[in-house]
Amino acid sequence: MRNICVKVSYDGAGFNGFQTQPYGRTVQGEIEKAIKKLTGETTIIIGSGRTDAGVHAQGQMFNFYTESTIPTERWAIALNTRLPKDIVIIEAYDVPEHFHARRSAKRKTYRYTIDTGKFPDVFGRQYRFHHPTPLNVDAMREGLRFLVGKHDFTSFTSIHSTKPHHVRTIYEADFVQEGPIVHMYITGNGFLYNMVRVIMGTLLWVGEGKMASSEIKSILEGRNRSLAGPTAMPHGLMLLDVEYSSEKQG
Amino acid sequence: MRNICVKVSYDGAGFNGFQTQPYGRTVQGEIEKAIKKLTGETTIIIGSGRTDAGVHAQGQMFNFYTESTIPTERWAIALNTRLPKDIVIIEAYDVPEHFHARRSAKRKTYRYTIDTGKFPDVFGRQYRFHHPTPLNVDAMREGLRFLVGKHDFTSFTSIHSTKPHHVRTIYEADFVQEGPIVHMYITGNGFLYNMVRVIMGTLLWVGEGKMASSEIKSILEGRNRSLAGPTAMPHGLMLLDVEYSSEKQG
Repeated sequence: MRNICVKVSYDGAGFNGFQTQPYGRTVQGEIEKAIKKLTGETTIIIGSGRTDAGVHAQGQMFNFYTESTIPTERWAIALNTRLPKDIVIIEAYDVPEHFHARRSAKRKTYRYTIDTGKFPDVFGRQYRFHHPTPLNVDAMREGLRFLVGKHDFTSFTSIHSTKPHHVRTIYEADFVQEGPIVHMYITGNGFLYNMVRVIMGTLLWVGEGKMASSEIKSILEGRNRSLAGPTAMPHGLMLLDVEYSSEKQG
Repeated sequence: MRNICVKVSYDGAGFNGFQTQPYGRTVQGEIEKAIKKLTGETTIIIGSGRTDAGVHAQGQMFNFYTESTIPTERWAIALNTRLPKDIVIIEAYDVPEHFHARRSAKRKTYRYTIDTGKFPDVFGRQYRFHHPTPLNVDAMREGLRFLVGKHDFTSFTSIHSTKPHHVRTIYEADFVQEGPIVHMYITGNGFLYNMVRVIMGTLLWVGEGKMASSEIKSILEGRNRSLAGPTAMPHGLMLLDVEYSSEKQG
């Protein structure tokens, strides 16, 4: 049986998240329907992770098993013609049978984007959180530095997290400004439920001057969600990239 | 009575064009509703020109007359809080009573954008025309050069144009490439119905090698719509800017 790994981008605005839910349109549901139309097979795809309702992806990854003999290089175009316009498959690979899009993932990178313009850019309104009052981005960057490394991120995940332990490693994190647009990039070995959004919600307190950047350290050490800030809006968040060891192309 | 001139941006995807129509949601209709909510006045706004269904604007201009005493710098925020999210007012100015957003306009600039990537960028899909086969942009640029200057553009306007004469002046026009993205910029003293889209539809024939760039000259001289190419899709088109002489701020 073939194992196919696929890189997919989607505009999260029209979805009730990545993963199939009892109600609402989901990315997984639309992709499984397209595979069914193409191959006739009923399949369950394995995503590298969920994204919440409204969250976007430039490079989400999933894999699935199939008996189809469609050539590797034809999958992307064949699926795109059967998918709605807010999901675009970028590439497909044949991978070894043991490859698992979630368990085999080594690094994930997210970006959270804020528009600090007086009024929002209308063409970016669904991809950026509009925050028209000034932000101290240098202080936010200082706060973010405390999160790099291996830590217990209990303070920065939803109380509804179902994971048995909350230790994750952040490899890199930084802020980049382009005029009124502020991006936070964050790369780690994995992210807990709502983790990037709670980090951003807390750093917004720092950027607004409501909290010193050094308090991020004590919030992290407190291991208590109630110490951190609110969960930032989903539409500013984008799953940029998921990396695997070189086996994926194997 | 005050005459207020307003710069507005909108995402054309959700509108049946700028101008009020018997059916469908229009930019003009939404703005007039917002003015009514704010001032209580029933007014008809004067746009610098219409944009078709699906066409976007980064810098459309309009003016309207009002008895309201709202300070100049408060209009943008006051209207934005009463407008849907796909219309964003950028600035408002008090202008002399004789200022007319259409008749006083000196230069307009449009941009038409093509995504030549194998698959469309999902986040730009509503703002770029996806053309996945190769385009000879140098040949398109050569063809475009024949249109710069003062000409009768009958060949490049809809047969439904209601204008008494079709002579317009193109001041500047060029193509700019950024990776797979191709922009055409075109600045003139005014544009006829569908003019930028017919120019692009014809230049696409040139870019695809179906026509020599020099044929643009004979099509122009033929003054017959049937000589030119199809009307390109509306969603790639953006009204970038409308310029006035310095009187606007007067």
